[in-house]
Amino acid sequence: MRRRDLLLLIGATAGATAMYQAMTRLGFAAESPYRGPITLEGDPKGASVIILGAGLAGMTAAYELARAGYKVQILEYNTRPGGRNWTIRGGDTYTELGGAAQQCLFDDGLYLNPGPWRIPYHHHAILDYCRRFGVALEPFIQLNHNAYLHATEAFGGRPQRIREIKADFEGAIAELLAKATRKGALDEAVSKEDQEILLEALRAQGGLDKDFRYKAGDDAADFRGYARDPGGGLAAAPSNGEPIGLHDLLTSRLWRGLQNFALYDFQTTMFQPVGGMGRIGEAFARQIPKVIRYGAKVTAIQQDDHGVAVVFEDLHGGGSVEEATADWCVCALPLSILSQIDVNVSAPMKAAIDAVPYASVVKTGLQFRRRFWEEDEQIFGGISYTNLPIRQISYPSTGFNAAGKGVLLGGYTWGGPNSYELTAMSPADRIKVALDCGAQIHPQYASEFETGISVAWHRVPFTLGCAGEWTDETRRQHYGNLCQIDGRIVLAGEHASYIPAWQEGAILSALDAITRLHKRILASR
Amino acid sequence: MRRRDLLLLIGATAGATAMYQAMTRLGFAAESPYRGPITLEGDPKGASVIILGAGLAGMTAAYELARAGYKVQILEYNTRPGGRNWTIRGGDTYTELGGAAQQCLFDDGLYLNPGPWRIPYHHHAILDYCRRFGVALEPFIQLNHNAYLHATEAFGGRPQRIREIKADFEGAIAELLAKATRKGALDEAVSKEDQEILLEALRAQGGLDKDFRYKAGDDAADFRGYARDPGGGLAAAPSNGEPIGLHDLLTSRLWRGLQNFALYDFQTTMFQPVGGMGRIGEAFARQIPKVIRYGAKVTAIQQDDHGVAVVFEDLHGGGSVEEATADWCVCALPLSILSQIDVNVSAPMKAAIDAVPYASVVKTGLQFRRRFWEEDEQIFGGISYTNLPIRQISYPSTGFNAAGKGVLLGGYTWGGPNSYELTAMSPADRIKVALDCGAQIHPQYASEFETGISVAWHRVPFTLGCAGEWTDETRRQHYGNLCQIDGRIVLAGEHASYIPAWQEGAILSALDAITRLHKRILASR
Repeated sequence: MRRRDLLLLIGATAGATAMYQAMTRLGFAAESPYRGPITLEGDPKGASVIILGAGLAGMTAAYELARAGYKVQILEYNTRPGGRNWTIRGGDTYTELGGAAQQCLFDDGLYLNPGPWRIPYHHHAILDYCRRFGVALEPFIQLNHNAYLHATEAFGGRPQRIREIKADFEGAIAELLAKATRKGALDEAVSKEDQEILLEALRAQGGLDKDFRYKAGDDAADFRGYARDPGGGLAAAPSNGEPIGLHDLLTSRLWRGLQNFALYDFQTTMFQPVGGMGRIGEAFARQIPKVIRYGAKVTAIQQDDHGVAVVFEDLHGGGSVEEATADWCVCALPLSILSQIDVNVSAPMKAAIDAVPYASVVKTGLQFRRRFWEEDEQIFGGISYTNLPIRQISYPSTGFNAAGKGVLLGGYTWGGPNSYELTAMSPADRIKVALDCGAQIHPQYASEFETGISVAWHRVPFTLGCAGEWTDETRRQHYGNLCQIDGRIVLAGEHASYIPAWQEGAILSALDAITRLHKRILASR
Repeated sequence: MRRRDLLLLIGATAGATAMYQAMTRLGFAAESPYRGPITLEGDPKGASVIILGAGLAGMTAAYELARAGYKVQILEYNTRPGGRNWTIRGGDTYTELGGAAQQCLFDDGLYLNPGPWRIPYHHHAILDYCRRFGVALEPFIQLNHNAYLHATEAFGGRPQRIREIKADFEGAIAELLAKATRKGALDEAVSKEDQEILLEALRAQGGLDKDFRYKAGDDAADFRGYARDPGGGLAAAPSNGEPIGLHDLLTSRLWRGLQNFALYDFQTTMFQPVGGMGRIGEAFARQIPKVIRYGAKVTAIQQDDHGVAVVFEDLHGGGSVEEATADWCVCALPLSILSQIDVNVSAPMKAAIDAVPYASVVKTGLQFRRRFWEEDEQIFGGISYTNLPIRQISYPSTGFNAAGKGVLLGGYTWGGPNSYELTAMSPADRIKVALDCGAQIHPQYASEFETGISVAWHRVPFTLGCAGEWTDETRRQHYGNLCQIDGRIVLAGEHASYIPAWQEGAILSALDAITRLHKRILASR
């Protein structure tokens, strides 16, 4: 019996769930570590858990533990849920470390996601929670062939359409390999029969002509587009542009921007919540009413054989000091914060907490009077890459082709000297840098800019950095210790995962932590 | 003064329009033949134009001519606007040539676009009309790395994730070319300095390891994904899958499906109207109230020195024969229809009308109880390609990640023997073929199918085929004659464009035709 016939039989007789289980076993379904909603079986008998931090890890833990029968409470520094799951909208205010306060003046419906902003299709857990909690998603356009690649030293500083660089690079590669193949350079590695198919494939993929050349003509135009597009009626024939030569392509280094088109983390189809990433944190919070205490700044975490006591300042109550207690603790604070808090855990866990630096990241949102990138330049979503300090300009993945204003992500600088230089600046100066850099790619900046907002993550009071940065070495030495249950405390968050800096890592970390904690609690009776 | 400084100056002093014009002249903006809304200057002094066909070409002509002051009327065979711009929704009925009647039983909100279903970013004219007429667009996901490539003879008939075939093919190509480069096979064609950069680029693009090999490991996983994805907490390290070998890749021929990822016509970002492609035709019709006469089947078109007379059957009036007259005529009927109508045009135009065959295309929509392709297989939009008669399965680009039902495009067969075989079948048999084929890719078909609908374009009464199929030879011989103004008649439609089978071709053809007609009319005074 063939594998597929078996599946058809299973589907017809046993229904969808059995079919899916069979598909997974037979290798048809994705091998995600997430296997759908968890079930924590067994009665916790009134046990209580205090959770620190109402980010996605903390709220996942609270939601699932409450469903399993635990008494849960969350202490949260901010006055909103979500943590780094955060959307800044018009009317919001934000004060960074150093005291600079910004009021967001964006128009209604426009926003900046300072933290996470996109969800890969293979982040099964967050997609499942969005489905269960009714968070509407829309495609996030990561890959846009009509956006730009730009480098100050390449092509006289003139931005190049990604599609032209991509088509011309792939065409040149295909032509070179076809030439090498026909010269016999592959004879040792590839059979003659396979070489024939390879040549056919190179021609098809690379836009080569019948003589395996990549040159101006219909074959290349199928990929790179035209100098003048085809039209209608008389005088409508298209004209072809001249491909960029290999030497210019290589020395421009613009090909560095092309790998984003293929990376697993950025492949189609990606998503964003309609209305901003913060919609996810808000949806989680609605599932756990009255569980979150906002404005609670944790200053100490102490455990003994009987329970956990957490000391915190009530920021709403003028800084009065309070204590909350529970049987167990899930600490979902960033390590950058936790490492500054008095916590009595084992030496190996403490060493792990102190071992992970946090990334320096700066994002700047810019509101413009009109969506000139769409109207003038036919760039609908996606990202332009540059070697300027802003590194990226990302175009909004919503409100396509409509009149009116829009907000660009005018800079997204991850790590490196530029991120530290920007962090050292005032928000107003960061916005000025974003405008000066962006105008080199979009001259319309000069006449269309209205207002901006900038977030430098090392100045964000509740996290002091964007995400934990592991190395192979720190992971080998510390990761296991970080994830162990230490007495009555277990950690959760993107830092306690193999998917750092992604929301999926935070959720999977929390699910793993509470699953183990639950077993420990049942076993400790 | 640098080009860019000039633009900044223009933008700051003269505003957006001047900036855009300057950008275009300096080569920054796209070279589309569409230059924004047309203006037909000069008073038509009461001249009348009869337009045949309320598809996008006919309605574009009517809208723009009416704006310019002409008296316009449209005769339309169907009881709805749009022509091939058509969405079938639950409750609709459709009777094809041969008499088979189908009632669409799709749930509310679900639909099939039997004709056009996607809009490229570089189709400037239709995007502009959507903007002006308030048609909301959403991304159409054409390229989905997690959809399948499938061939009955490849990999035991087991569908392969596009991302794996794509990453492994590109990795193998990069490895081969790196090997050839290092052996000196490129020494004649590429300088040593450029070879060094080329190797760096091949490693970055191809997911090669430090020794320029494409093999199971972190570098390949960055592109092809994992056997087991990274997770959170303990035991969360990912595991890598084994890449598919070059011989298997080549002989599978699945690489044929990859070129869609790069073609200009299918590149990101594509669009569809929210609610179905038919929203565009409906929006055009709202702009020209009382202009369209529905249920009018044109049977003869006669012109003389004074005007044009069109004979038509009033299908609503039991087939009574009527005549409509005007000073001029824009005929936007498909050539497949027009070639069967008595029309007194010049011999060269008549020859052109008769010279263009129409494509045989079959589309089948299938409603399923749940969106198993998303829930079970993480396929969000995009297209799976197969060598089975259905050729494609396209997943809906709306309602992502939500519970509930969904409609797949369960088959889209363009040309070739399969399209004729399917056309010869009853709609019920076409649906059965779609189910049988589709179940080889998605075994869930067996348990989840509810209802389907199928359109074979050679049986569509109002067009008798999908779109005009030009060859280089017929275009050389006939295209110019087809597009000429013949006395008082000019033709319009996708067939009178260099963008056949696309709505953009229909609109650009109409704009070109009426621009020339208007000049002729003013000059004829």
